[in-house]
Amino acid sequence: MGKMLKGAIFGIMLITMGGLAFAEFATTEDAIDYRKAVMTVTGEHFRRVAAIVTGQRPLKADSLAKDTQVLRVMAELPWEAFMLPGSHKGKTTLKKTALKEKDDFMAMARQFEVLTQQLDETGKSGDRDAVNAQFGTLAKSCKDCHMTFRK
Amino acid sequence: MGKMLKGAIFGIMLITMGGLAFAEFATTEDAIDYRKAVMTVTGEHFRRVAAIVTGQRPLKADSLAKDTQVLRVMAELPWEAFMLPGSHKGKTTLKKTALKEKDDFMAMARQFEVLTQQLDETGKSGDRDAVNAQFGTLAKSCKDCHMTFRK
Repeated sequence: MGKMLKGAIFGIMLITMGGLAFAEFATTEDAIDYRKAVMTVTGEHFRRVAAIVTGQRPLKADSLAKDTQVLRVMAELPWEAFMLPGSHKGKTTLKKTALKEKDDFMAMARQFEVLTQQLDETGKSGDRDAVNAQFGTLAKSCKDCHMTFRK
Repeated sequence: MGKMLKGAIFGIMLITMGGLAFAEFATTEDAIDYRKAVMTVTGEHFRRVAAIVTGQRPLKADSLAKDTQVLRVMAELPWEAFMLPGSHKGKTTLKKTALKEKDDFMAMARQFEVLTQQLDETGKSGDRDAVNAQFGTLAKSCKDCHMTFRK
């Protein structure tokens, strides 16, 4: 695509947005892509923390914090996207039950948020046993929710 | 897949990770998926700020901050993933020139980081003209880099 055309499309995109009603996600597909993207970012930083827990990476409070801070921010983002009506259909592994059992889903989501905050705080201590224990609790929280609400 | 099997795979994944050398991304594909995911999250929050700029959403400092803070965090994450050797191949729109012109790419990336920080700061003022101007500068930064380094 030519540069002029790309520029024109970008400009038109911004202008036309002004004429449409605003929704947090423009389409259900966007919501699915967004929550998957948050999980992809989460997964990579989870993997990096796991590498510390398993002894592949040294435990350094500052490098651990880089990952736990991202996990903490990510943990607040995707839940509304999961609760969008009809978003169990399409390219997703979300079970329909997640939308029916919204309170249960959100309770698990909030627990995950709290556990990422706790991991970020625990990391500051540089205490390996405490970090490992907190990471284990967080990993269990991932697994529990995936097993309950993921196809 | 049964719950027991899922649990076993999860456990094995954590254990086997201990025996492998650690890299920030396990594979080039992971790096590509990661940077795409960061851009997907960035795109959604950019869209939400754009909706304020175009008048679709009211300008409220606290809701604007939710989006600009995410943009600010996201802006720090993806650049190393773009610079991974060979990562212009595969399911990506990254031009080969990005890897050859690493300094130019990183300079644009750092500028984007600074501009997201400035947008986040400007948003606190609640000054519409200032927010719009800062958003315009940020949007130009996106476009310039995409036109230079995106297929």
